[in-house]
Amino acid sequence: MNTQLDLGVIGLGVMGRSLALNFADHGFSVGGADLNQAFVKLFADEVGDSSRGFTSTHDLATNLTRPRRLMIMVPAGKAVDAVLEELLGVLEPGDIVIDGGNSHYKDTERRIALASERGILFVGAGVSGGEEGARRGPSIMPGGSEEAWDEISAALHAIAADGPDGEPCCDWLGGGGCGHAVKTVHNGIEYAFMQAICETYALLKGPMGLDADAIASTFGSWNSGDMKSFLLEITETIFKVRDSGSDARLVDMVLDEAQQKGTGKWTAEMALDLGVPCPTLAEAVFARGVSSRHTIREALSSGHPNPTASDTNSLTVQDLRDALFATVVLSFAQGLDLIASASDVHGWGVKLERVAKLWRAGCIIRISFLDRISEAMRGAGSRHLLLDPWFADRVAEALGGLRRAVSAGALQGVGCPVMASALAYYDTVRAARLPHNLLQAQRDAFGAHTYRRIDRDGVYHTDWLGDGQTRAL
Amino acid sequence: MNTQLDLGVIGLGVMGRSLALNFADHGFSVGGADLNQAFVKLFADEVGDSSRGFTSTHDLATNLTRPRRLMIMVPAGKAVDAVLEELLGVLEPGDIVIDGGNSHYKDTERRIALASERGILFVGAGVSGGEEGARRGPSIMPGGSEEAWDEISAALHAIAADGPDGEPCCDWLGGGGCGHAVKTVHNGIEYAFMQAICETYALLKGPMGLDADAIASTFGSWNSGDMKSFLLEITETIFKVRDSGSDARLVDMVLDEAQQKGTGKWTAEMALDLGVPCPTLAEAVFARGVSSRHTIREALSSGHPNPTASDTNSLTVQDLRDALFATVVLSFAQGLDLIASASDVHGWGVKLERVAKLWRAGCIIRISFLDRISEAMRGAGSRHLLLDPWFADRVAEALGGLRRAVSAGALQGVGCPVMASALAYYDTVRAARLPHNLLQAQRDAFGAHTYRRIDRDGVYHTDWLGDGQTRAL
Repeated sequence: MNTQLDLGVIGLGVMGRSLALNFADHGFSVGGADLNQAFVKLFADEVGDSSRGFTSTHDLATNLTRPRRLMIMVPAGKAVDAVLEELLGVLEPGDIVIDGGNSHYKDTERRIALASERGILFVGAGVSGGEEGARRGPSIMPGGSEEAWDEISAALHAIAADGPDGEPCCDWLGGGGCGHAVKTVHNGIEYAFMQAICETYALLKGPMGLDADAIASTFGSWNSGDMKSFLLEITETIFKVRDSGSDARLVDMVLDEAQQKGTGKWTAEMALDLGVPCPTLAEAVFARGVSSRHTIREALSSGHPNPTASDTNSLTVQDLRDALFATVVLSFAQGLDLIASASDVHGWGVKLERVAKLWRAGCIIRISFLDRISEAMRGAGSRHLLLDPWFADRVAEALGGLRRAVSAGALQGVGCPVMASALAYYDTVRAARLPHNLLQAQRDAFGAHTYRRIDRDGVYHTDWLGDGQTRAL
Repeated sequence: MNTQLDLGVIGLGVMGRSLALNFADHGFSVGGADLNQAFVKLFADEVGDSSRGFTSTHDLATNLTRPRRLMIMVPAGKAVDAVLEELLGVLEPGDIVIDGGNSHYKDTERRIALASERGILFVGAGVSGGEEGARRGPSIMPGGSEEAWDEISAALHAIAADGPDGEPCCDWLGGGGCGHAVKTVHNGIEYAFMQAICETYALLKGPMGLDADAIASTFGSWNSGDMKSFLLEITETIFKVRDSGSDARLVDMVLDEAQQKGTGKWTAEMALDLGVPCPTLAEAVFARGVSSRHTIREALSSGHPNPTASDTNSLTVQDLRDALFATVVLSFAQGLDLIASASDVHGWGVKLERVAKLWRAGCIIRISFLDRISEAMRGAGSRHLLLDPWFADRVAEALGGLRRAVSAGALQGVGCPVMASALAYYDTVRAARLPHNLLQAQRDAFGAHTYRRIDRDGVYHTDWLGDGQTRAL
């Protein structure tokens, strides 16, 4: 009685429904399933006649053409495991399951192994762009069982955002959990990007004394050239929205306690786990944490006033533009470094050139220089972004501004954790000599942890606190 | 034929042998066991007649008085599990096993549960002080099965360092894995303390142009009053040690690539896990990571020169002393906050007053103001260190120096990640208003994540990028 459907979407919340409608817009017949009948109705009312809603995953699966293609759009965690378990009881070898949620990449690796025991192909696909992106064109970051790619690429390419050159912002990234790892790091960069904008806002408003209109137009004026980006675009718009009940701008009435859902934290954990220095991405996570500790902030604010403003302040708006630019580039540098290391360790085969390409549109961190990043990474498995001449030059030009912004924040009591961290990262990662010779000597002095020398090979231990004698080990 | 021994130490490497000899010095007859016969001989040769060496854990256990008291001093990880498994086959209910290594507190929680199935009491005890501390008096941080404490307190008190008031630097901290969690955070603070000294060294040597003798005497002069500390003491000494083969100071010949063994990383992971802002402790971990990436530093150093020195530099040695002091206090504040939160979450019942007391001697981060911390925390389960008037005043006095140091580092290209992070932490945790109203607006604009308002209760969503309409949810 039924025509078989092209593909299925399980979970018809905001993101799932938007993606399902996006598939339908592009000529695919879609089966949408959710336990919540209201969600199914909402979907069925909006989608065309060739698509259908289901309240049972089983019914959905049995109405799909072979190989079945199912996209799971439920909250990350146990819900994904529950849906997958149900699917494994229904699906047949060669069928394909795509997890489009914000899953942890280690969960994805486990699920790939579990599915492959039954011959099911599992794909972990990061999806960025929020509701609007999912509906009109997200950035999609798929990885996992590569045999699935031929069967799903047409559908994913169809719904993805188009890059500036018309290429879809969706490409196969590699094996294992790399799709979700790349999405996680995307979000880690997003945390730092947003925090850097907040710090810029604090400096524009405090030391520079700009009002909301001036702040809006400043962010707007920066939203061009190398720094044209979604986040600057929405920031300009946000500062223009008026509060309906007062004369104020709405943003001034919003409580300054940042929430978070965990992917920024995962990025920092991943960096610690793999030993890749991503201090700026970690600072952004902790900065949200500080903002949400209202009680302690309230208690400390009265007894710890601002310093009296330094009158030698020569900070300019251009300095802040440069500070923001350099901070964002350095955040990308750290995130890409992390993806490259994770790919090396796990054998995913991720190419940074592709990652940068599919971040160019649809996703939250899209910014015009991603074309340049893609070019900078061409042919290289991994490469530090600062080694690319174009980025090295742009960062060098912007550094004076970053230095003056961090200095002004420090002297005037405006906390700029992400900008300060980005600058310290730059100044240490480019340092031929760091003071860690002292740290190695300290470790050897109290813990006999040994050290190496700059002038010859070998491992040494010195009785620093005793007779000063050295042994080669 | 044998007199039964008072207690056993399993693992006679540097730390194990030192602790075993320390027990013997204090009148305990000790059984020392190691699979390595050379280690057993080394121990047996040095210890008195009432103690004995064993190459079998089983033989050691059967030669102990009941309840048996055994301290495991083997590398953290699988070796501890292997020894514990062996012991569980030999020991009887009421016997006590103390893990004195740098174990992860979650492993300790698992081992407590495993041991308790057999009626064995398991204690996780952090031990700090390096070889010299273990031999002459370490700081010991025990927690776990509290019924064990009466049986082991005399022995642990005997070998521990004595605090300034003569009280031993060993006290029962609480349940579960709290002993190892406290030791982990101790090490996290140690990372930040050492990194802060390194950054001070970089500023003394670079911008201030001090030579090794002047650096030694500067650190020496700071090693008094509130800042009298083990790490400053050894730093002064280290700068005086000459290289035997050249005219140089030995520290100048040491390779500047910092190593690490994982406890700093665990601290940062714990902070992320529990959502406690410890950005400065995390920066210290990443700073070691940057230092050890020699290839990229080498590659970047030529193309990214130092900025031309700013001639408005008025940084003083006193500024750097204050910068170091404030950074160290803020690192302690973050670490204590983390311990308090971990104790709340896990129900350990740790009192920060006790933690501060047993860090006053024997351990690497001992510093004279720990007496003040203990006082500041008296009676309080947990309290932010900056809420204490004495610390609030001392940090306020030192802030000008920290501000100028961070500014100088930023303007002159000397990377100071930990100092900059400590200052940003201070300036945000004391801020009545932060710019995160913008961040919440951004999240709501692209992800419909909702926000709260400053002037009334409720949760709201606004169509920021569309018609500007707001819904209360």
